[in-house]
Order: sequence, then C-alpha cells, then structure tokens
Amino acid sequence: MSDQRAQAVVALGGGHGLHASLSALRHLLDDLTVDALTAVVTVADNGGSSGRLRGEFGVLPPGDLRMALAALCGDDEWGDTWARVLQHRFEGDGEMRGHVVGNLLIVGLWELLGDHVDALDWVGRLLGARGRVLPMALTPMDITAEVRGLVPGDPDALTSVRGQVEVATTDGVIDSIALDPAAPEVSPAVIDAITGADWAVLGPGSWFTSVLPHLLVPALREALVRTDARLVVVLNLDEQEGETPGFGPADHLRVLAEHAPDLHIHTVLADTGSVGGDLHELEEMVHALGARLVVDDVAADDGTPRHDPAKLAAAYSRIFGGR
Amino acid sequence: MSDQRAQAVVALGGGHGLHASLSALRHLLDDLTVDALTAVVTVADNGGSSGRLRGEFGVLPPGDLRMALAALCGDDEWGDTWARVLQHRFEGDGEMRGHVVGNLLIVGLWELLGDHVDALDWVGRLLGARGRVLPMALTPMDITAEVRGLVPGDPDALTSVRGQVEVATTDGVIDSIALDPAAPEVSPAVIDAITGADWAVLGPGSWFTSVLPHLLVPALREALVRTDARLVVVLNLDEQEGETPGFGPADHLRVLAEHAPDLHIHTVLADTGSVGGDLHELEEMVHALGARLVVDDVAADDGTPRHDPAKLAAAYSRIFGGR
Repeated sequence: MSDQRAQAVVALGGGHGLHASLSALRHLLDDLTVDALTAVVTVADNGGSSGRLRGEFGVLPPGDLRMALAALCGDDEWGDTWARVLQHRFEGDGEMRGHVVGNLLIVGLWELLGDHVDALDWVGRLLGARGRVLPMALTPMDITAEVRGLVPGDPDALTSVRGQVEVATTDGVIDSIALDPAAPEVSPAVIDAITGADWAVLGPGSWFTSVLPHLLVPALREALVRTDARLVVVLNLDEQEGETPGFGPADHLRVLAEHAPDLHIHTVLADTGSVGGDLHELEEMVHALGARLVVDDVAADDGTPRHDPAKLAAAYSRIFGGR
Repeated sequence: MSDQRAQAVVALGGGHGLHASLSALRHLLDDLTVDALTAVVTVADNGGSSGRLRGEFGVLPPGDLRMALAALCGDDEWGDTWARVLQHRFEGDGEMRGHVVGNLLIVGLWELLGDHVDALDWVGRLLGARGRVLPMALTPMDITAEVRGLVPGDPDALTSVRGQVEVATTDGVIDSIALDPAAPEVSPAVIDAITGADWAVLGPGSWFTSVLPHLLVPALREALVRTDARLVVVLNLDEQEGETPGFGPADHLRVLAEHAPDLHIHTVLADTGSVGGDLHELEEMVHALGARLVVDDVAADDGTPRHDPAKLAAAYSRIFGGR
C-alpha cells in the first residue's frame, strides 16, 4: 500500500460490531493505509448503564461511544490503562452495580462542558485515541419497529415495538424500523467527516438497532448519498437472535436497501465461511444494487460470530487499495 | 528565596483545610521555594459520596484524596479541565445524585489496579498534578470519640460516638478521639515522604476528624517524631460547630499535644485577626511545647473562616525561609 496516498475513513455503527471494525481500522492507521479515522456511533441505547444514565440525566446514552473510544485508545501504557479504566464495570450488589466508569466520566464531561462533541474529544485526548468518535445525533433517540408475528393467530399483523432493547430482543420478525425523533439534529462534524471521507464503512453489528439507524437520520443519510466517499457495507457473520432470525446475507442487504433506497453501495464485504450456499442469491442482490461483492475470510477463529480485527484489517486494506 | 535550596514539604490533613494548604504550597512550587510536595490525606470519611462508595466497595473513602489531587492540578487547560471534571458532583434526584465523578474514577482505578497508591498516582498524572497525594493509611478507618455532655443531668459523663460524620456533628464536647482499627497499615511511600521532608505541615482543617487522626496512626506518628523535618502546625481561624465549640487557639494546641505528647512542634502558625485577646494564652502554650509562634495575616478577606491561599503561601515562604 505504500505507493498509494492514505485514505480518510468514516466508520458507522455501534456496539461490538463497530468496536471490531474500529479495531481493524486502527491497524490501517499503523501501516499508514489510513490517515484519518472517524467513528459515527448510534445513540439509541435504552438499556443497562447507558439507559439508566440517559433516564436520569436526559443525555445521550454513552456506552457505545465509550466502547468506540476504547477501541481507538493509544498503544502505550497510558492509552491502554485509561481504556481499561473507562471500560471497567462495577460489580457487587449496590447502587453502582452495572455502571461503567467511562460512562460516568462522559456524562460528567457533558454536564460540565455542555457540548457532547467537545466532551468526547476530551475523552479521546485522555486515551490518546487514534481517531475521533462522534455521536450520530445530538439528541437521544428511540428506535421503534414494526414487528410481525406477535399477534396470536394473525402472523401478518404488525405490532409497534419501542426501544433499542425491546426491538433487539423481540420474539417477532422485524419488518421495518423508524426513529423517534424522526429528524434529530446532527453535528456538523459528522457531516464534515462523511463529506471529506474517501471511504465510509457501515456495519457490522446489530442490524436493526446499530447499523440501519444511521440511514434513518435524514441529515446523515443525505450526507452518505451525496458524499464522494465509497460506501462499504460489512455484513454480519450470522443471523442474530431477536433482530435477524433466519436472515441470510442477502436478507441483510435487502432490508438495508428497503430502508435507504437512494443509497449507493460501492462494496459489500461478506465472510467466506458465512456465505456458504447463499452465495448465488447474495451475488444477485449485490448486482441488483450496483455494488461489487468481496468475499473474504474475516471471521474469528474461536467459533463466535465475530469478526477478527486482523483479518478484517487485511480485507479493508485490499478494498481501499483497489479503489 | 532564590538564594536558598528548595524544600521538600509534606502536608497532612483532609478536606477543605488541606485543600487550602495545598493551594498555598503549589504557589511555592511555582516560585521554586518548594521542589517536592506530598499530601498525606485522612481516610476516615463515612458520609456523602465517599461514605456510599466505602460502604458499597469496602475501599478507602476517595473524597478527600480527590480534593487534594484537584488542588494540585496542572496550571494549563488540560489540568484545569480534568480537575473540574473530577470535582463535578451529579445533581438531580436519581441514584447518582451526590456522587462525584472523581470519586467514581478513583474507585474504578482501585478495583482495576488493586493498589491504592498506584491508582492515585495515575489520577495525579491525569491532572498533571504538582505533587503526590497519598492516603494516610491503606485501610478505611473509623474515628471514635469520647464525648462529654450527651447524658442529661451528668455533664461530665463520657459517651462513645463512632464515625467521622457523627463525631464532626456531635452536640457534646469532644474529649478525645481514637481510630478503629487502631494501627492501620501505612504505605511505605508515606513514611518515605515524611522521613525525606524538610518541612511537615499539619492543619488547618476539622481538628478532630481531619488533623488529629494523623497523630493516632502509630506508624505515621512515629515517622513524624523521628523525622528531621520541622513540623508546622497551622491553627484554624475559628472554632468549628460540632467539633470545637468554644475552642480558642490554645485549646486547639492543647488537644493536639494531649493526643501526641511525644511530638516536637517547630512552628505554630496562627492568624493575626483570629488570635485577638487569646494571644497571651497562646504564647504560653506554644512556649510550653518548645515551639515558636508565628502570627501572620492568613485569613480570607471574604469573612469566611478560611485561609487565603496566597496569604498562606507568603506565610509558608517566610517560615521555610527562616529555617
């Protein structure tokens, strides 16, 4: 890659999927394939420590933002130690049980500085972070879903389900999602990052609650449609109980296209072992969307349906180099 | 002072009194009068955010340690911002109400690193602190007091009162205090700081619950008795409701001597305006203890019974210079 200019990358997602993607992308900062990295993170969580803090203070849920920052921490003892401190979750059986140190620090910074983006930049500086972490919107939001199969005797009836946790764990089949508020304010820094990027990476992650929400924020989708950045969609390795039961690779793409029909996808990245017998169907779907398909070995070797950061880094490197 | 070698100073106390003393001493780091500063902080608090965390996690109460660290924060935007974040107290009416960000960060570091002193050094590095902050003991402790005047009809009867908050707010008159455990473990770093200091500063602060406890930890008192460091006792500006009602300057010294009769005091610093008609009695007490008395204008101009850091710095400078 050394004979090519370095790329600016924006990674969109949330939770463990975004953490894996960012862990991969920081490898590319090390080998100078990438020289600017921005994470744009979902802020719809309503469970756990994040949900409690959101409920108590009316702030953005900090958990996914904290996890993204930790993924980008500096390589030295300083960055590593503060990342571990910020990721530390209190145990025991008292009032602090389940809260995470970094969530509390971020909320304290928000209260003190009154600016979500400025506060996250301070945490980034604390960690010596190898990139910038931004919230996808400046107001907390709720995910709502139209879900099939929750009405006994009427399998096609749609039921509205509200809340990230509730949607992610529904017993039904999600038909579509929406956001409340429907058009939240987006930081200019997010728009600038998307506009100035060479590549935008969407996914992997909880498909309906961490990946698709980005496409439902009007200002964010518009920036993704308008940017010259080439969009890489990284498919999940498996179906996910609750959100995507029975979903094959093509189904993931189909619902994505349904939620953002005007989006131009440049590359779809799928894992070799996960595609299996679905390859033909996936190829047809990718072709129909005008994208190219890259099938590569990006799965962790431990049998979990998670991406291996080093393998994912190699795949990204090949994709960005082949521009 | 420029023609004299810089001094190593250890400051012992807790709460707002120690904060004022450290704020003064950092001025002397700036003008190179002092080149090494260590704070040794009480760990007997059982109220507020500290008490809740101590109760929930069995750790040292972090509040006074946090306040001391904040007093020593770096002069730049970095140190100032992180100090303000660590001092930020959550409001509202939820489960976090009253907790302080820095307390939670310190407890997280303790849990993660398993070493109280190491963790406090990490917070010091975060703040760019101009000195080191150490706990006076490595186990949380309780203050117990023998209190007169709580038994109706028997004004001389002694009642045992347990807990920093309970002692500090008793309606009776404190006769003596003790610690539980009586001989807590002390960090070697504390002993080293006292042994290597040119000056040790004790007080100002809540006399029975922040100042005298240091003299009741055997290893700590022994180090103070043995060190070549000259001990400066800084008297409070006024009596304190609960702890020292009706106490004049000489009474403060008297109870200190009663609790540590083998301690050699080099200098007693009293405020000009606070001594008033008690000067003669104070002079006699100081003389009896073999110390010298320095009466200087060190009170804040705002009418509060607090020391002014700049005036206190000037007084320390004169005292250290006159060694």
